[in-house]
Amino acid sequence: MVVFSELHTPLRTIMTPGPVEVDPRVLRAMSTPILGQFDPAFTTIMNEVMTMLRQVFQTKNTWAFPIDGTSRSGNEAILCSIIEPGDRVLVPIYGRFGHLLVEICERYGADVYSIECPWGDVFDPKVVIEEIEKVSPKIVAIVHGETSTGRLQPLEEIGRACRERDVLLVVDAVASIGGVEVKTDEWFIDGMIGGTQKCLSVPSGLAPITYNERIENILYARKKVERGIATEQDLNYKRSNHFIASNYFDLSMLQDYWGPRRLNHHTEATSMIYALHEGLRLVLLEGLEERFNRHQYHERALIAGIEAMGLKLFGDSSNKLPCVTCIEIPKGIDGESVRKMLLEAFSIEIASSFGPLHGKIWRIGTMGYSCRKENVLAVLGALEAVLIRHGVNVHRGDAIQASLDVYMSENQSLLKL
Amino acid sequence: MVVFSELHTPLRTIMTPGPVEVDPRVLRAMSTPILGQFDPAFTTIMNEVMTMLRQVFQTKNTWAFPIDGTSRSGNEAILCSIIEPGDRVLVPIYGRFGHLLVEICERYGADVYSIECPWGDVFDPKVVIEEIEKVSPKIVAIVHGETSTGRLQPLEEIGRACRERDVLLVVDAVASIGGVEVKTDEWFIDGMIGGTQKCLSVPSGLAPITYNERIENILYARKKVERGIATEQDLNYKRSNHFIASNYFDLSMLQDYWGPRRLNHHTEATSMIYALHEGLRLVLLEGLEERFNRHQYHERALIAGIEAMGLKLFGDSSNKLPCVTCIEIPKGIDGESVRKMLLEAFSIEIASSFGPLHGKIWRIGTMGYSCRKENVLAVLGALEAVLIRHGVNVHRGDAIQASLDVYMSENQSLLKL
Repeated sequence: MVVFSELHTPLRTIMTPGPVEVDPRVLRAMSTPILGQFDPAFTTIMNEVMTMLRQVFQTKNTWAFPIDGTSRSGNEAILCSIIEPGDRVLVPIYGRFGHLLVEICERYGADVYSIECPWGDVFDPKVVIEEIEKVSPKIVAIVHGETSTGRLQPLEEIGRACRERDVLLVVDAVASIGGVEVKTDEWFIDGMIGGTQKCLSVPSGLAPITYNERIENILYARKKVERGIATEQDLNYKRSNHFIASNYFDLSMLQDYWGPRRLNHHTEATSMIYALHEGLRLVLLEGLEERFNRHQYHERALIAGIEAMGLKLFGDSSNKLPCVTCIEIPKGIDGESVRKMLLEAFSIEIASSFGPLHGKIWRIGTMGYSCRKENVLAVLGALEAVLIRHGVNVHRGDAIQASLDVYMSENQSLLKL
Repeated sequence: MVVFSELHTPLRTIMTPGPVEVDPRVLRAMSTPILGQFDPAFTTIMNEVMTMLRQVFQTKNTWAFPIDGTSRSGNEAILCSIIEPGDRVLVPIYGRFGHLLVEICERYGADVYSIECPWGDVFDPKVVIEEIEKVSPKIVAIVHGETSTGRLQPLEEIGRACRERDVLLVVDAVASIGGVEVKTDEWFIDGMIGGTQKCLSVPSGLAPITYNERIENILYARKKVERGIATEQDLNYKRSNHFIASNYFDLSMLQDYWGPRRLNHHTEATSMIYALHEGLRLVLLEGLEERFNRHQYHERALIAGIEAMGLKLFGDSSNKLPCVTCIEIPKGIDGESVRKMLLEAFSIEIASSFGPLHGKIWRIGTMGYSCRKENVLAVLGALEAVLIRHGVNVHRGDAIQASLDVYMSENQSLLKL
């Protein structure tokens, strides 16, 4: 019998594009004793989560609730619930998570068309709209904030074009929700997926989603209540023969669980719901605009420091994702060795990237609770020291001063973090 | 803007078949600050979880890790990873969760054969083996502990028969793991799914699974590393055209994430992993045999009280699931009104049931941390009072005395709860 000792974890300054540091108030909420899933005290909490999610997604949609899984489970839940084999889907890819959308659609039998632009760019909406014209898809699926490249894709024009052509638009806003403006309704987005472990500063394990009536109508047509809990009426209901392939991700059943019918599907992940409840509450207490401003404020301070050090930012500033800053790794330097020393000597974590950018850039996240002055200053100071140790010719001492200049020149006394 | 106040939940005595009360040490573990998913301090914790899971599953399998979802996500992950359209699956159904297995298999295109016995019975293994002979399935999927009816299905004979015939056996042990003997290897079980929110007393949100080489070989044949993280070598690897339909539940990718390759799939649900780590540790510290004995000890005390009150147990004692006790609702009594009063006046939760048993039985769970003397005595006392209030002619005062007799006659001073 091997029994390990209780958890004894190091404290980290987590400056990656997720998972990021969890707000201590969220951590505390998770240690609340649990309630039964149909306890009225718990279903009240579920309803409050839905109300708060609608506000964070900036939507009037009826349906806004989390999938019990990590972020990509939200993508799969929406996509598999609306894709039928042979459906045409267009995926514009500008980084790793566009490829993920393709993978999910392919697996559920979609006829997938994709266009790609180089990692580091985003799409001119006109290019996407032309492709929509050409392909005539049922669905367009696209990423809003691409953490692998640190880019932000403008969506409103694409959304309007989709709505005009009766195309469904599904957006992965995992990295942007709670840190950057995300306007579900104004941008004509039919299905939206958010992440918890990034700008919401809630641990990974839930994927908040929202969708509108256009998607809801598809769900009704594919509805299939599982035997064992189905009533006579459910069984007499035309059991669709183009049902949703996944039981776990079947949104038609999930909305019967989250809605007034409270039809048992799974056992809701109580402690994670507590965490999300507290996380959403803190976002709304801070205020959406205030929170977006805070993310940009610390981004400015970080960029000032990085550039003062003599490092080069990756990508175009016009399409930069405010909560992720990508830095070109200086020639001849082993990026992984730098990351390792940052972690081992300073207990600070920054990220590498994937695919064509692996070994080419570092990524520093300034998300949610991690997006604080002391964290920005700590990562700048440590990075400078580690680069000097690796023989890089940086401008010694300038990074923190430049960052402090931003912090001391801007009157941001009202910022909560 | 609607912002709710912070969580302020009532304290409940939860005596349902799950979710049950979480051990306070597990709740505390969840408030530990998080680590990045590839932080060596975190991957060490992941490895420890795997090592402890193997012991709880009583297996030498390489693969034992949680799916990031609620219990049924474990069923779906194993089934969808091994089912290809047209595969023949046999599901013996003796309650709600057998129906769930059918649903999952159907959705992934299996050719499903089922046999049913009345809710309240289990199968004579010979009946199942005869059906295996007749159907010649690729897979048999069956529930071990059926919470909807409070029954425990003997598995060893079925397991041996499957292995002899080269049939895969997949078992849903969500309700039994950690409370009742579960012997993955000795019983010839190829894929096993456990639950966290029942006898492990960890919140819902993870589904621990284990599977052996017979399943692993299927995964290799269906492997498909997703683009965006695939290496050249992965892309040159024959990309299977009978790939697994779900990306989220693709065990071939999940084992590359949990294994030494550490290939990024999702972002592991850090705080839930902390909870599972602590929960498994507590199971092993208590000892498996000791824990199973504790569950039976409190079951005896509960049953003594229920029978002394004059109530009738549902089902045959020979196949009773030790951690779930089903009670026939006395004629003319509204079972839901009794449950409501238990919750509102005594803050105690017991369960109703599903399908043909809805309104016919109550179910009292004695699982994990909820399986304690004070909880058993509290539910007996409260149930007696509520039944008197509902006009039921019970033997007043006898239930607690009979239960105390068990507690005072048996020398169980070594029990940890």
